[in-house]
Amino acid sequence: MNATATEATGDVVGFETMRRSGPTDIRAAIRAGRYRGHTAGLGLGRLQCNLVILPEAQAIDFFRFCQRNPKPCPLVGVSDTGDPAMRTLGADIDIRTDVPRYLVYRDGEAVDEVDSLEGLWRDDLIAFALGCSFTFEHALMRAGIPLRHIEEDRTVPMYRTALQTVPAGAFGGGMVVSMRPIREGDLAEAIAISGRFPQAHGAPVHIGAPDAIGIADLDTPDWGDPSALLAGETPVFWACGVTPQNAVLRARPPICITHKPGCMLITDIPDTAEIPVLPDNQ
Amino acid sequence: MNATATEATGDVVGFETMRRSGPTDIRAAIRAGRYRGHTAGLGLGRLQCNLVILPEAQAIDFFRFCQRNPKPCPLVGVSDTGDPAMRTLGADIDIRTDVPRYLVYRDGEAVDEVDSLEGLWRDDLIAFALGCSFTFEHALMRAGIPLRHIEEDRTVPMYRTALQTVPAGAFGGGMVVSMRPIREGDLAEAIAISGRFPQAHGAPVHIGAPDAIGIADLDTPDWGDPSALLAGETPVFWACGVTPQNAVLRARPPICITHKPGCMLITDIPDTAEIPVLPDNQ
Repeated sequence: MNATATEATGDVVGFETMRRSGPTDIRAAIRAGRYRGHTAGLGLGRLQCNLVILPEAQAIDFFRFCQRNPKPCPLVGVSDTGDPAMRTLGADIDIRTDVPRYLVYRDGEAVDEVDSLEGLWRDDLIAFALGCSFTFEHALMRAGIPLRHIEEDRTVPMYRTALQTVPAGAFGGGMVVSMRPIREGDLAEAIAISGRFPQAHGAPVHIGAPDAIGIADLDTPDWGDPSALLAGETPVFWACGVTPQNAVLRARPPICITHKPGCMLITDIPDTAEIPVLPDNQ
Repeated sequence: MNATATEATGDVVGFETMRRSGPTDIRAAIRAGRYRGHTAGLGLGRLQCNLVILPEAQAIDFFRFCQRNPKPCPLVGVSDTGDPAMRTLGADIDIRTDVPRYLVYRDGEAVDEVDSLEGLWRDDLIAFALGCSFTFEHALMRAGIPLRHIEEDRTVPMYRTALQTVPAGAFGGGMVVSMRPIREGDLAEAIAISGRFPQAHGAPVHIGAPDAIGIADLDTPDWGDPSALLAGETPVFWACGVTPQNAVLRARPPICITHKPGCMLITDIPDTAEIPVLPDNQ
C-alpha cells in the first residue's frame, strides 16, 4: 500500500508524501492544515484549477466574461450561491479549506493572504474554478514535446498583449498569454493536442511573431521567467489564467478571493478528459 | 448580384429569396415582419441558435445548469442584463425582433406565441443562445455521412432518457437525446467530427443500445419522426436542445421566452468554427 497524506502522523505532510497521494488525501491534508505548499506536480492525472470567488452581485458579469472569453477563462466548475461545496469537481470539496493558500482582495486591492476562508465565507459568495495550463502541458509531455520552463524548473513566461478580451460589465481588459518555445517539427502536433483541451486554454492564440500581439521583448516577461528561444524553435502563445485575475482587479469588486498563484484546487476530474466531467456524471 | 431579402418589395419574403440571403439580410427581413417561417436551410454556413430568455433572478441558476451540462446546453452567447443586443453573435442582432416566432411561458406554462418581444422585453431579462445540431449535421454531410431524417425531409427523432442532467437550483431533470442511424463504417468519423463541435452538442452521449439509456422503443420517439434503422446501421444518440427547454418548464420561472421550435436565431458566427467567436474577436 502506498503512503498517503492522511497516514502521516506529524503536523506537516512533506511534498514527497503529497506527491504519492490521491486527490482526496491531498485535500484532506490541506484541509487539516498540514500542507501549505504549491500544488505543481501533485495529484498527477487530475485537473487542477484556478479559483475566483465573488459575491453573487458581481458573479453574473464574471460568468458572462468567462463565457465570452473561453480561451483565457475556461470555466470548469461553478458553486451554488453560498455553498462551499463544488459538487461537480469532487465528492468532498470544501472550497473554504481545500486550497493551500488564498489571497483576499477588497475593491481591487490585495489586502490579506489566508490559510482558510472559514471566517470570510458568506451566503452570497460563488466560487468559480477555471482550468489551467498544467492539463495541456501534461498532454504535450505525454506526446514527447519538451517544455523548456519545466525542464529548467522555472515559471512559464507570461506577457501582457494588445489582444483585447470581450468585456462583460466591469470585467475586461487585455489578454495575458504564456509562451513556450516549440520545435518547428512539433508545431502541428502541439496545436492539435492543446486544441483538444478547451478546459485548459485550448489551442494557441498566436504563433510566431510577438510584436504582432504587442509583445516588444520576449526576454522581459511581465510575470514568470524568460524561456530561451533556440535555433529551429518558434514562440507559441497560449491564453493565460492571469487574464481573469487582471479583469477582476480592474473591476474592483467589494470582495474577491483567489488561490495564491501556484497553490491551486486539485479536483477528482481526470486530467485527460477532453470534456471535464466527474466519472459518475456521464 | 444575387437577390437579397431586403431587396424584396412585397410584404412577404419567400423561402427561396431567404435561402439565398446572408445573415444580416435574413435578420432584417424577420425584423421587418416579412418572414415568419422556419430557419432550417437558411443562413447556410452560419451558426443557428436555440433561445432561452429568463429574468436575472433565475438566470444565474440557468447559467450554472448550462455550465454543468455542456453537451445538452452548449452556451454560445449571453446578453447583458436588459440589453436586447447579442453583440458577441452578430453586429446588429436585436433579440426582441430577429427570431421569426417566439413562445412565451409563465410559471412553466406556454401562454402565448408572438412575432416580436417589443411589448414583453424588460430591463431584467437575459437572453441565452444555445448551439444546435444543425452545425454538426452540416459537418457530417460535408464529410459524406448521410443523415436519414434530412434525406427524408422529416424531423429528427428525439427521446426522453434515463440519463440525468446535473441540476442547478430549480433546473434539472432527464436528458433528451436525438438519434441518427449511422453506417458502421462511418461511426468513428461521425464521433470524431461531431466531437469537434462542442458548441453543437459535441460527440454522442451513447452509441448502440437504446435500452441502456432507458429508451424502450426507437419507433415511438417522444418528439419528431421515427428514422428507420437499416441493416449495417447503428443508432447513435446525441444530447439534444430539448433538454434545457424541459429543465426550464420544470423550474417554472415566472416568465420565460424561447424561440418557436424550428424558428431559430441566425448569427454571424461561421458554422465551421470549432470555437464560436465572431471573426473580429480573434
